[in-house]
Amino acid sequence: MSDSENGSVFAGPVGSEPAAERLAEAECLRLISPGGIGRLAFSSRVGPTVLPVSYRLYEETIVFRTGQDSPVGEDLRTGIAGADYKVAFEIDHLTIAGPEGWFVFIQGAAHHVDSDAERASVLQAGVEPWLTGERDQLIRIIPTLITGRRIGPAGNAVGE
Amino acid sequence: MSDSENGSVFAGPVGSEPAAERLAEAECLRLISPGGIGRLAFSSRVGPTVLPVSYRLYEETIVFRTGQDSPVGEDLRTGIAGADYKVAFEIDHLTIAGPEGWFVFIQGAAHHVDSDAERASVLQAGVEPWLTGERDQLIRIIPTLITGRRIGPAGNAVGE
Repeated sequence: MSDSENGSVFAGPVGSEPAAERLAEAECLRLISPGGIGRLAFSSRVGPTVLPVSYRLYEETIVFRTGQDSPVGEDLRTGIAGADYKVAFEIDHLTIAGPEGWFVFIQGAAHHVDSDAERASVLQAGVEPWLTGERDQLIRIIPTLITGRRIGPAGNAVGE
Repeated sequence: MSDSENGSVFAGPVGSEPAAERLAEAECLRLISPGGIGRLAFSSRVGPTVLPVSYRLYEETIVFRTGQDSPVGEDLRTGIAGADYKVAFEIDHLTIAGPEGWFVFIQGAAHHVDSDAERASVLQAGVEPWLTGERDQLIRIIPTLITGRRIGPAGNAVGE
């Protein structure tokens, strides 16, 4: 296991395990490219927070919508132009039986899409709001880390 | 929506939305009682982190296993007896179509089960390790907050 060498916390669902096969960045991006439901983790005003969001992948960034004045939208604003908070994002496809599946972990800056030009281009990604109501703030996570693991049944890593 | 009053960040998948029905704590506990896969979020040595874990509910606490000397196990140790880090935990059952389903959000202290007596009682919960390999550290999340939302199709909250 190459991961045990660097003490990565992303070596498996909880720690380094021989049964988890590390996924290359390109494979991670391929797996998450259909979009869907991911979990956004960040430090909110009330501490560590993790919430499901509906996302799309657009130019290798994670795009999701939130309300412009929503608590999440506000908590992710530093108030300093060009400065973004670092957030974590997780997407998985796992079954408890086996266990079997994969997960992808992303860290990056939570960039607010504020300019009309960027907004127009990002909207091409077809990011749909999850619920009805006003969701006019687009946020892009610009990844600085993309990693993932594939977990096979009976403790074995599996291929495609 | 009572949630918009207190500016809760947990009012919906990403912010306050009229389509999400708030779930009572008892209902949250009922929904997550079968155990399964949840997502653990915390601040690790490399920043915000969110990872899938296999959990069980035991006496209204979330129990999972990790390696005693694993990065996750170590990152969650304060080094001060009786002092625990605050972590977040999310469990959901959601489909992107609709959207429909529910999610539960928990915050609490990440308590390391170190005494033999506590370990023996917690092991009754039948917490299975996700992968083969050594996973001899039990961690319990002692909730200080349990909340959740049910999301209905067509922007409506749904009942059972």
